[in-house]
Amino acid sequence: MKIGFIGLGNMGNPMARNLIQSGHELVVYDIVQAARDKLTAMGAKAASSAKHLASEVELVITMLPSAPQVKEVCLAPDGIFAGLEKGVRIVDSSTIDPFTARELSAAAANQGNPMLDAPVSGGTGGAEAGTLTFMVGGQEEDYRAVKPILSCMGKNIVHCGPSGNGQVAKVCNNLVLAITMLGVCEGLTLGVALNMDPKVLTNIFNTSSARCWSSDTYNPYPGVMENVPAARGYTRGFASALMLKDLGLAMESARLSKQPVFLGALAQQLYQMMVRQGNGQKDFSGI
Amino acid sequence: MKIGFIGLGNMGNPMARNLIQSGHELVVYDIVQAARDKLTAMGAKAASSAKHLASEVELVITMLPSAPQVKEVCLAPDGIFAGLEKGVRIVDSSTIDPFTARELSAAAANQGNPMLDAPVSGGTGGAEAGTLTFMVGGQEEDYRAVKPILSCMGKNIVHCGPSGNGQVAKVCNNLVLAITMLGVCEGLTLGVALNMDPKVLTNIFNTSSARCWSSDTYNPYPGVMENVPAARGYTRGFASALMLKDLGLAMESARLSKQPVFLGALAQQLYQMMVRQGNGQKDFSGI
Amino acid sequence: MKIGFIGLGNMGNPMARNLIQSGHELVVYDIVQAARDKLTAMGAKAASSAKHLASEVELVITMLPSAPQVKEVCLAPDGIFAGLEKGVRIVDSSTIDPFTARELSAAAANQGNPMLDAPVSGGTGGAEAGTLTFMVGGQEEDYRAVKPILSCMGKNIVHCGPSGNGQVAKVCNNLVLAITMLGVCEGLTLGVALNMDPKVLTNIFNTSSARCWSSDTYNPYPGVMENVPAARGYTRGFASALMLKDLGLAMESARLSKQPVFLGALAQQLYQMMVRQGNGQKDFSGI
Amino acid sequence: MKIGFIGLGNMGNPMARNLIQSGHELVVYDIVQAARDKLTAMGAKAASSAKHLASEVELVITMLPSAPQVKEVCLAPDGIFAGLEKGVRIVDSSTIDPFTARELSAAAANQGNPMLDAPVSGGTGGAEAGTLTFMVGGQEEDYRAVKPILSCMGKNIVHCGPSGNGQVAKVCNNLVLAITMLGVCEGLTLGVALNMDPKVLTNIFNTSSARCWSSDTYNPYPGVMENVPAARGYTRGFASALMLKDLGLAMESARLSKQPVFLGALAQQLYQMMVRQGNGQKDFSGI
Repeated sequence: MKIGFIGLGNMGNPMARNLIQSGHELVVYDIVQAARDKLTAMGAKAASSAKHLASEVELVITMLPSAPQVKEVCLAPDGIFAGLEKGVRIVDSSTIDPFTARELSAAAANQGNPMLDAPVSGGTGGAEAGTLTFMVGGQEEDYRAVKPILSCMGKNIVHCGPSGNGQVAKVCNNLVLAITMLGVCEGLTLGVALNMDPKVLTNIFNTSSARCWSSDTYNPYPGVMENVPAARGYTRGFASALMLKDLGLAMESARLSKQPVFLGALAQQLYQMMVRQGNGQKDFSGI
Repeated sequence: MKIGFIGLGNMGNPMARNLIQSGHELVVYDIVQAARDKLTAMGAKAASSAKHLASEVELVITMLPSAPQVKEVCLAPDGIFAGLEKGVRIVDSSTIDPFTARELSAAAANQGNPMLDAPVSGGTGGAEAGTLTFMVGGQEEDYRAVKPILSCMGKNIVHCGPSGNGQVAKVCNNLVLAITMLGVCEGLTLGVALNMDPKVLTNIFNTSSARCWSSDTYNPYPGVMENVPAARGYTRGFASALMLKDLGLAMESARLSKQPVFLGALAQQLYQMMVRQGNGQKDFSGI
Repeated sequence: MKIGFIGLGNMGNPMARNLIQSGHELVVYDIVQAARDKLTAMGAKAASSAKHLASEVELVITMLPSAPQVKEVCLAPDGIFAGLEKGVRIVDSSTIDPFTARELSAAAANQGNPMLDAPVSGGTGGAEAGTLTFMVGGQEEDYRAVKPILSCMGKNIVHCGPSGNGQVAKVCNNLVLAITMLGVCEGLTLGVALNMDPKVLTNIFNTSSARCWSSDTYNPYPGVMENVPAARGYTRGFASALMLKDLGLAMESARLSKQPVFLGALAQQLYQMMVRQGNGQKDFSGI
Repeated sequence: MKIGFIGLGNMGNPMARNLIQSGHELVVYDIVQAARDKLTAMGAKAASSAKHLASEVELVITMLPSAPQVKEVCLAPDGIFAGLEKGVRIVDSSTIDPFTARELSAAAANQGNPMLDAPVSGGTGGAEAGTLTFMVGGQEEDYRAVKPILSCMGKNIVHCGPSGNGQVAKVCNNLVLAITMLGVCEGLTLGVALNMDPKVLTNIFNTSSARCWSSDTYNPYPGVMENVPAARGYTRGFASALMLKDLGLAMESARLSKQPVFLGALAQQLYQMMVRQGNGQKDFSGI
């Protein structure tokens, strides 16, 4: 299949590579020339603009840092929407707020192009290994149509419902993750302050009602588990600055949907403080 | 074995019954006459005071509502400590703060009686079925000595370290539980406000990093799971008033050990509000 | 002076009237025909578009609900910017975030038009009476030029610094206001729960370090003061929905400037809950 | 008058000295010998125990660090209550929780001795200068009887209602103080992050609805005011460790009176963090 890929950064680069290695023909675009060059060296063709790219392919995938870039690359005069033939699908794998995702999808639908939101989890490691999880929002038939392509880059391709719901799933999952991680941190720190061994306490959590991924798979207390960021000074994990970005999306979505989210609001401030203290690149379990 | 049991309420009654059914000889005491009568009808002998009870048995078990009652029943002139022969062990299964537990244990040790803290989880259902979890604080040899007796009332008998650590484990577990439950509530409510199906969102949580007991075993959103309090109007569960009590113990322990516990403090206020609104008997997942 | 006024709602209508009564010549515009008619009945001239209005006047004043409307009315093809002659000033009295205010001001400056932000406090009562406070962001000379005009509608015209700082002042003031109000509420409610007379406690606050406007001028406890919303069921005050809007601006500004704001985040959630419970029109001291 | 004074620390010493200088005859007691010696050097007589002291005087004043010491000095076999003749009054100026204050007052009343709670504000500076504020709980006639004595040590002697209400007033005032201080800190920090001059912003607060003691009298931002702790590196003020103690009393009182106190709970955690980071001796405006 002839696929256009826009956004060739830390995530986009390995994702695009996995598509090439699966035998797809790639047209790529990025505002950074060097990013394009890396992919053309592997056999991709570079386009001169997003519009140009869109006019040549059967499917467009975007992987960009945040909503303003996605809007720009879609709606600008030389953007994707201007170049698409009717019926060509767009998959946006950027993590953005559900409201923007739905707005863009509606605009695309208006001109006859189905647009799906498909944010990922799994980080750069999952992108390299092709084991990402894709949370897909869009119509069932469009989901089915793009699933084989996404499967070249990930192993879980989950349909979350209509347009925007991929973003909702991502943002809500990470909201719960931040809160449970903070809960485990508070529980373990309090336990240790009260003279309890964090390993013993973790075992109790894991076999009881405090059990959670943040405790049994990604334990934040140094010395409790091996092969987690806590065992290596909170390096090489999910950067707290990225968690802060996702909490920002969650809280902004909460504001727009008029939903009180108490612990989420506090988690956001705590991660803001961590980032402000210069620890934005450390893993989020370092909180 | 001849065992003294003090505190024959909703939890203590079925626990004492399970001991009788396991073949132990029971001496019971409760300030409520009717509570004593229920057990004597099953073959237990009633004592006229805690001191009297203590003087007759090889092991004393207490199951009381809170720290003041435990202190009173131990230290009063006609209390347990006044009646014990040297070497007789005490197991306190009440949920109290670790500081009081350690203070009482030290006082008991002073007169030659090992005292263990062994709060339980599992609720009245677990007490009836004999499937409670006991979190035990005390010396290894004392833990080993009482384990067979506790096994008549529960199926997990966990040694958590020295005196007080059973309480630490209980209090920290429930702190994390309250926070993860609130996290799941906020995540699901936000998701629904953003037009997502709570079942689909729960599935994503459960196969991803937001996975936790509050999501995969005790889901708080009506309609997602069967056989949980959320499926029956939040009845017959872990009363939010009890969760509030445990959060009070956690926060008081945090204050005394000079440990900031941000989300825990907020969880305490939210449960306080729920209880104040008249929902103290509803399950804590109804928050 | 010939002044254009755009946005003739609950605030804009009396503000525009006060300008007419001060002898100025008014050209007005609003997307709602009826709103325009009210002003033309008083001698104002109606324009057919924002552009049309802008092309006819020596100064443009806007008073709109939120940032998207301000952007639209400025930047649309038939908007203000398209109609302005060089040198004509714009004063935006809407309450919006400082980032948008600065962006618009920079765009206006680019085409030779000074744009000032001048949000107000004082509510509809102050607008009717001409006693509003204007918090003005912009260059000193532009501030001096518009001050006489603003003085027809308000009695305090404060220069807060360069462009955007009027919005900063408004948003930070209301952030502190929400927090102090919640502080007074918590202090008085706790005092009453502990059997203290709220009037006596208020007197102590007011002569001590807890003294604040929320306690000595706008006391939230019913029965403590007369002529405040608390004395009339929290009617006719500063709607909690508007406080929530301002807290949203504060928190969004905090997020963009990477500043943790703990109590503000919690205040936002509490007001969100109040609004969600259907009390958005009640005064914010009813929290 | 012959007055007994117990507790001769940083606060008690200057308070006792002011009584001597007002012409009263003093009998003093402290568990620290050196503290007693300082007062006997000024003409006070030292007692060998609290009981001994109580048996010799017409009024007893206590000034101790926290509730356990007050209970001990009142109730111990050689404590105050054991030595008092009927009708002799006790004034406790320690800051403790209202529940303990009421319990002790009831016990004292039982044996015919009126006991008043009279915590102070004003710090060591106010104690030296004799300008403390006394918040007095107890019966009107007892308040009137001790007012002339307290006036030797302070200039505001406020009757707050029946027993315990002095403590309620103190604890609620400081709760509101902590929250308003944090509010001002958040507002000013956010304003500065958004490029606003903290002096200009403070002026706006002080003439608007954000006005409060923490802004207009004790401003926390360095450079805004002179002669406040913020102007001298947060030295010589109200230690954040003491604010944390008072917040602990407020939150414990809230727990016992089943009152949710959201911002107070968060303030407590923030001060706990500040103290834990080694800044417990810095002024509370340094938060």
